[in-house]
Amino acid sequence: MNAAPPTTVASTVASTPPARVLVVGPHPDDQEIGMGGTIARLAELGHEILLLDVTDGSPTPRGERVGRLAEAATALESLQPSAGKPRIRRALLDLPNRLVEHTIATRHALAGAIRAWQAGIIFTPQPDDAHPDHRAVTRSVEDARFDAKLTKVSMPTPPGFDGIGPPVYAKWLFYYDVSHLRRVAKPDFLMDITGFEHKKQAAVLAYRSQFGPWDDATDAGAFAAGDPKARTTSGPANDPGKLISADFPQRLLAYAMYWGGLIGTRGAEPFFTPEPLGLSTLAGLVG
Amino acid sequence: MNAAPPTTVASTVASTPPARVLVVGPHPDDQEIGMGGTIARLAELGHEILLLDVTDGSPTPRGERVGRLAEAATALESLQPSAGKPRIRRALLDLPNRLVEHTIATRHALAGAIRAWQAGIIFTPQPDDAHPDHRAVTRSVEDARFDAKLTKVSMPTPPGFDGIGPPVYAKWLFYYDVSHLRRVAKPDFLMDITGFEHKKQAAVLAYRSQFGPWDDATDAGAFAAGDPKARTTSGPANDPGKLISADFPQRLLAYAMYWGGLIGTRGAEPFFTPEPLGLSTLAGLVG
Amino acid sequence: MNAAPPTTVASTVASTPPARVLVVGPHPDDQEIGMGGTIARLAELGHEILLLDVTDGSPTPRGERVGRLAEAATALESLQPSAGKPRIRRALLDLPNRLVEHTIATRHALAGAIRAWQAGIIFTPQPDDAHPDHRAVTRSVEDARFDAKLTKVSMPTPPGFDGIGPPVYAKWLFYYDVSHLRRVAKPDFLMDITGFEHKKQAAVLAYRSQFGPWDDATDAGAFAAGDPKARTTSGPANDPGKLISADFPQRLLAYAMYWGGLIGTRGAEPFFTPEPLGLSTLAGLVG
Amino acid sequence: MNAAPPTTVASTVASTPPARVLVVGPHPDDQEIGMGGTIARLAELGHEILLLDVTDGSPTPRGERVGRLAEAATALESLQPSAGKPRIRRALLDLPNRLVEHTIATRHALAGAIRAWQAGIIFTPQPDDAHPDHRAVTRSVEDARFDAKLTKVSMPTPPGFDGIGPPVYAKWLFYYDVSHLRRVAKPDFLMDITGFEHKKQAAVLAYRSQFGPWDDATDAGAFAAGDPKARTTSGPANDPGKLISADFPQRLLAYAMYWGGLIGTRGAEPFFTPEPLGLSTLAGLVG
Amino acid sequence: MNAAPPTTVASTVASTPPARVLVVGPHPDDQEIGMGGTIARLAELGHEILLLDVTDGSPTPRGERVGRLAEAATALESLQPSAGKPRIRRALLDLPNRLVEHTIATRHALAGAIRAWQAGIIFTPQPDDAHPDHRAVTRSVEDARFDAKLTKVSMPTPPGFDGIGPPVYAKWLFYYDVSHLRRVAKPDFLMDITGFEHKKQAAVLAYRSQFGPWDDATDAGAFAAGDPKARTTSGPANDPGKLISADFPQRLLAYAMYWGGLIGTRGAEPFFTPEPLGLSTLAGLVG
Amino acid sequence: MNAAPPTTVASTVASTPPARVLVVGPHPDDQEIGMGGTIARLAELGHEILLLDVTDGSPTPRGERVGRLAEAATALESLQPSAGKPRIRRALLDLPNRLVEHTIATRHALAGAIRAWQAGIIFTPQPDDAHPDHRAVTRSVEDARFDAKLTKVSMPTPPGFDGIGPPVYAKWLFYYDVSHLRRVAKPDFLMDITGFEHKKQAAVLAYRSQFGPWDDATDAGAFAAGDPKARTTSGPANDPGKLISADFPQRLLAYAMYWGGLIGTRGAEPFFTPEPLGLSTLAGLVG
Repeated sequence: MNAAPPTTVASTVASTPPARVLVVGPHPDDQEIGMGGTIARLAELGHEILLLDVTDGSPTPRGERVGRLAEAATALESLQPSAGKPRIRRALLDLPNRLVEHTIATRHALAGAIRAWQAGIIFTPQPDDAHPDHRAVTRSVEDARFDAKLTKVSMPTPPGFDGIGPPVYAKWLFYYDVSHLRRVAKPDFLMDITGFEHKKQAAVLAYRSQFGPWDDATDAGAFAAGDPKARTTSGPANDPGKLISADFPQRLLAYAMYWGGLIGTRGAEPFFTPEPLGLSTLAGLVG
Repeated sequence: MNAAPPTTVASTVASTPPARVLVVGPHPDDQEIGMGGTIARLAELGHEILLLDVTDGSPTPRGERVGRLAEAATALESLQPSAGKPRIRRALLDLPNRLVEHTIATRHALAGAIRAWQAGIIFTPQPDDAHPDHRAVTRSVEDARFDAKLTKVSMPTPPGFDGIGPPVYAKWLFYYDVSHLRRVAKPDFLMDITGFEHKKQAAVLAYRSQFGPWDDATDAGAFAAGDPKARTTSGPANDPGKLISADFPQRLLAYAMYWGGLIGTRGAEPFFTPEPLGLSTLAGLVG
Repeated sequence: MNAAPPTTVASTVASTPPARVLVVGPHPDDQEIGMGGTIARLAELGHEILLLDVTDGSPTPRGERVGRLAEAATALESLQPSAGKPRIRRALLDLPNRLVEHTIATRHALAGAIRAWQAGIIFTPQPDDAHPDHRAVTRSVEDARFDAKLTKVSMPTPPGFDGIGPPVYAKWLFYYDVSHLRRVAKPDFLMDITGFEHKKQAAVLAYRSQFGPWDDATDAGAFAAGDPKARTTSGPANDPGKLISADFPQRLLAYAMYWGGLIGTRGAEPFFTPEPLGLSTLAGLVG
Repeated sequence: MNAAPPTTVASTVASTPPARVLVVGPHPDDQEIGMGGTIARLAELGHEILLLDVTDGSPTPRGERVGRLAEAATALESLQPSAGKPRIRRALLDLPNRLVEHTIATRHALAGAIRAWQAGIIFTPQPDDAHPDHRAVTRSVEDARFDAKLTKVSMPTPPGFDGIGPPVYAKWLFYYDVSHLRRVAKPDFLMDITGFEHKKQAAVLAYRSQFGPWDDATDAGAFAAGDPKARTTSGPANDPGKLISADFPQRLLAYAMYWGGLIGTRGAEPFFTPEPLGLSTLAGLVG
Repeated sequence: MNAAPPTTVASTVASTPPARVLVVGPHPDDQEIGMGGTIARLAELGHEILLLDVTDGSPTPRGERVGRLAEAATALESLQPSAGKPRIRRALLDLPNRLVEHTIATRHALAGAIRAWQAGIIFTPQPDDAHPDHRAVTRSVEDARFDAKLTKVSMPTPPGFDGIGPPVYAKWLFYYDVSHLRRVAKPDFLMDITGFEHKKQAAVLAYRSQFGPWDDATDAGAFAAGDPKARTTSGPANDPGKLISADFPQRLLAYAMYWGGLIGTRGAEPFFTPEPLGLSTLAGLVG
Repeated sequence: MNAAPPTTVASTVASTPPARVLVVGPHPDDQEIGMGGTIARLAELGHEILLLDVTDGSPTPRGERVGRLAEAATALESLQPSAGKPRIRRALLDLPNRLVEHTIATRHALAGAIRAWQAGIIFTPQPDDAHPDHRAVTRSVEDARFDAKLTKVSMPTPPGFDGIGPPVYAKWLFYYDVSHLRRVAKPDFLMDITGFEHKKQAAVLAYRSQFGPWDDATDAGAFAAGDPKARTTSGPANDPGKLISADFPQRLLAYAMYWGGLIGTRGAEPFFTPEPLGLSTLAGLVG
């Protein structure tokens, strides 16, 4: 018996249109930080993607509503595919920033968006977080996924849509990694984003009000004592501390590089799911 | 904004030949029980697959070497694809049954097989088991995966091969589920085997010396007291116990149906990996 | 020293009356799906059991209030013991379907039922679920278990009872497995239901509005796209898809058989508890 | 509907003789420290129990072979039931202390003992430990459980027995808690030992060579720097440190009391199993 | 090369004032039970500590508001350091006992206290508990930690303070162990409390209304059937049951002794954190 | 009550000399990759540190014994503290590369080194790895820690030492992160290495035979197909793949930056322990 080269055969996996994707973000910039590279890649692969901002992100230490929405629009442009634009869209649910709660009203507002977009795959921030809005949003999305499949019920139409369409049950609800908790993420799968790291970086840095660059001397005062965004890096005396913002762009790439290292690619982003992945083929594996 | 039907686009994922697959089994029948449906499916998808039996499975309460090897050949036939045969092959490493140990000799024998087959993906039994051979084999395969990539070293050529070929590092080592421990498996992914359940069933039942049907009255004595294979099912007095073998064929399908229920398919098999899956696309997801 | 046969001795474990059992279900049918076999077995062993339906389960894609309550009554009959009937009873708390929330009112309604029944053991759905009602009910039961032991407080009397009785603290709160999430259950213990699988199957199939049999051609439209209940099974072209309902009765038995296989019995159901089991004897172990 | 008192019914659980129990200890005293209370209780309940010492425990900082074996005999007496003696026996496998290895010879020596005793339930130290002998013993017992069910094989007869008897498969392998690692045990079940704490204490303290009381001034030098047995307790200056041995008897009771607190009994001991418990009744639950 | 004694060098870790500590308790006595020894030790080390009682703990089976507050004051005194008093203070948020809910109002009340105290480290009960108040408090504290860092928002001033001070983000949120669930705690770190066990015991026993000593014959009736506080210990017939209260003082010391045994000290208390500890030195390790 | 500034008090934690540290590496470079920053920091803090190389790391795809030992010496120099040199030393146990096994001989060789260095804290690679040597070394170190405390036994003297000194038990055994498995590390604590990242980078890059820079065109052939070291990074067509070595220096800093981000410092390294940390103070916390 010899190790002959493998015979290439035609795949028997039926071709279906790419699933419609909904990416929920508590505030504009969460989607880009957590999975900007994946958004760009999925758009390139033909998925239609809706970025749903639950709040406008204001008030905030630096920036206000009009500015943040403009930043969000710029960020969106950075992620669009090279051809076939626009494949990514953005909508604002406009719940109150810092005050989102897990209620039936929040659930139904989100379920309306799921139905309006006819989402087949939903992404939402992973549930262990220090930010109350993140936890309330994800907890509500978990319920809204189910609410969206209910018949004999009405849901509000989200801003920018004509109606909510028929009931639908998204086959997958994945969590992405955007946490204000210093926890260590143990992902269920990693998405290769090689070649999309700089699109992600550009999209995140479009939120200049949030990530600077800032004038360290004058802007530090805008933040709470102990706020990670404003914290100075520790170091020996001859290495003066700086606002975290100073090396934030570099940290974004380091993050992608760290995760990529775990699957042997240049960059990656981690995802989580309590439901085991179902595969029909091993062809999509990277490692 | 309307929920327009998604635009179908040509995939940008480059076409590569299917990875060469090595499925290690401590004894003939382990591969079929644990992942017979997946083997059949992967063969249909074009993978070249080697079933490597570490031992011949004898002695055993019922059956001996010649008979078991014949059963193994029959089982193999049951799994071959409908076209393009033979895509699955079988080899016997011939270490001593019930006495496999985790040694450098065992590691190198396995590493030689990995190199001879130029395996890109390896499957081996999951490591928590009551059967000493299973634990010794899997522990040795874990090391052999690494040994097979070493340069400047010699490895034995496995039976049936001309040589061991150049060093190679299998990108994935997956564990399949074939356990003598009554543990509850928490898989990392499930493989859809819908349409292949009966091929699997036929392959397993080819091992008539192991799974019967038996004559309950006379064959029970061949087993140890308490042996799960010979245990009678418990029940009320008017439901006389039977050898487990009596409903074994049905249990095989129930097992596939249970796991399939978790991803919404008719059948599935569970797999395990300490290394997070890397994906380049969501196209292969079933659920 | 010889291995002499063990001396049988009289058990010193004091005989106490079987604990009163409360099984909470968000909607009629949840108790039967999750633990119908265990309910039937415990009734046979002498436990007095209350099935508490939190809602009437309507609206629903198919069926309405009157019909579902009639189905629930039929299901109950299927589970009663062969002698000493009726040992299982049923009550309806009548909170609004699809809109159950974790509030103090819900907690106190449940606590009233715990006190009215003087429950010593409570069962409720395991907490990780996609259905909002399931999560709200279980979260509320967790709190109500404690609320029911409070002195100097009033609780509402549940429908069908004369009053709520004195404070009581249920020693055990167990979770049963009835999940709309495709998660993999890792149980803390399994209950042998050998001989009760068909009682369970009959009880579940009493809910014809929920599990069919249906006319695939006309009934599929009643469900949301992607709804697991209406999903067609995947398969090759010559194996046309069917509503999941078609093989639902068989799946129920497969489920019991899968879990039974883990303790060497014909059938079993899994249970969960964050509180380690306390045992006074090893006599009740099956395996 | 009223909450009528439960009807007491005759149990339908068939009466079977108590399982034969084997408790493996790497060195004399391990069984008593880890599960002395449970041994005493199970003996009282009618189980026949064999304490198997894998080594004689010598050399050791204090004490030698003859003395340790005499201590072991005394300890055994402390655990015997009040009536029906002797229900607990003791055997010495006599492998070399500090040098036990996980080999086929060790496995077969243990499997011979399992067959000679026809063990239905085996206890062995939990597998995460700092002591090499503990890990080697438990790893070997795991394999020996399976080896003992093999037909067509020979095993050595253990000292004190006439032969090894027919193949047997112990339905349960439980781990008890006796660890030299400062890890935190998360048990699968707890055994109520209320009323047997002092029998356990007496059995452990029979090993005076190991647990003192010692003369702090002169005996400390027998131990390694940093050895937990000889470590002085930390404290403020006016509370001079003492050898751990000084409060060891009290620690034994504190340990039982801590675990008992988790199931609402006066004392308990923790146990571990990767195989989910199978129950046929809830009658044996304490909590 | 010889093993020369280590050279002692001056530490280069900069000296900073000890962090301000906030210990949140749902009811007076929770802080003392869970971490009374740690509170006493941290006070001795120079930390300023605020014990924040969320409710007054009344109604309760035994005792009322005035009495419980007096007990709380006495308990506080027991924990004060030997010199530099008072370093520990106490405040009452006065939310309704048994009815605490996770709302924005609760979050903001707690966030106001965090800001008023300018807490650098927060302790709150670990989140898995049977008591609804405990879960609601801890869930709210998790959110309040973040709320306290928000700029451009108002928070209520807590009773006993002049104002809420500037925004602040506590670097650490640790969970302490005070649970009504019989779960097994797996801590992330243990705090050595050797020398402070009796201060803790005195502080807890100051709550005589909660922990007795009681008259078993007359006081048992004040509790619910099954209430762990009133449960009689199980045992053989000649060992009459007693209220748990009878050995409660001893159990407190046993608890500290159990945990201390895991790090080789006389006493310890366990703590939990989802955020991995960051260390700048190994100097503070005890073990 | 006001939030007065905290009173600074003198620490009551007694000053003890820094513990002697032993860092075991299967091959030269493992210690530097896994914890080079921590080694440099601990040396600066006054710890005496021994880097013990179990093998010389040859043969290897590129490089041989003499060259690797020279690289190891250069790496060591990079980590020495700015003053008080040499505080770090290096010894070679000289077991055979690629063939290390978990035997009593290996254990005793390591135990001899532990005693010769009188190690108080031991570091060894975390145990889940694809490299057989790593697993064999760590498994042996776990046992050797205990073997080193045995009295009445002889151990070999390690190369470069005069003898093995008295028995000693290292209070802590920590695992560092240097894995050939693409697993995701969930650390128990992180060590701040801010200011030492470049010392680490210099130490690792001293191993030019292992990490390049290489000539991509000619050196790729030295590695196995699929070897992560030689794998080209994936990417679009206009971004030609490169040997991983090309961005290896950058990846080292990204790794430190990723972990640092989790405790709010510029850089960090993760560590693991099954034994919960014991703390006597919160003063050393960074976050």
